[in-house]
Amino acid sequence: MASDPALAADVFARCCESRRTMLEITGRWGTLVLVALGDGTHRFGELRRRIDGVSERMLSQTLQQLERDGLVARDVRATVPPHVEYRLTELGSRFAQHLRGLIELVQDAMPEVIAAQERYDSAH
Amino acid sequence: MASDPALAADVFARCCESRRTMLEITGRWGTLVLVALGDGTHRFGELRRRIDGVSERMLSQTLQQLERDGLVARDVRATVPPHVEYRLTELGSRFAQHLRGLIELVQDAMPEVIAAQERYDSAH
Repeated sequence: MASDPALAADVFARCCESRRTMLEITGRWGTLVLVALGDGTHRFGELRRRIDGVSERMLSQTLQQLERDGLVARDVRATVPPHVEYRLTELGSRFAQHLRGLIELVQDAMPEVIAAQERYDSAH
Repeated sequence: MASDPALAADVFARCCESRRTMLEITGRWGTLVLVALGDGTHRFGELRRRIDGVSERMLSQTLQQLERDGLVARDVRATVPPHVEYRLTELGSRFAQHLRGLIELVQDAMPEVIAAQERYDSAH
């Protein structure tokens, strides 16, 4: 793709698949799931406890999308009951590392953001 | 905030304001607006043309949220009709730079992502 500019992915184009992928990884839960898995392998219940507020349905749907995109791998051990674990793929690790930086940037900027909100609200 | 761990922002906590801020900048349009403004100052109509598919209402709402968070500044020249331009603040530039890296990562990874989707779809 990179070798042919005419076929290059462009998130600014509405029909480009890259925009959908970007929205999945940065969507309501994608970022938190990828960064939580940056710590290592996790079971479903562990992820659900780590990501405060996520419903069972949303976590399951997010994991499925990330698995389909090749960012998360699902390991199933054929025990009774089956033991299922989630981990990042190599590609998922690259995204998670970048998203962790973004989270740190946001968390560190919160005093500035909150001050800006207070200025805005008192002026409008 | 950084000096007191008990008060540190934590995007994993559902009630933390940092989670809302992260969702705004990574939401459907936040990332594209911030990165588009990374090129320099833009008028509303220019942004709308650059960001394929955004409605007038959504662009206006996104710009207002980013302005409230202190990431985007709105400059109004008192001409008739008023001339309005949008630009990144210093804080907004920091976010935009990081998000541009994320977009590049996603765009470059698309061949891998699409291959993973094809594997997933043929196995499920």
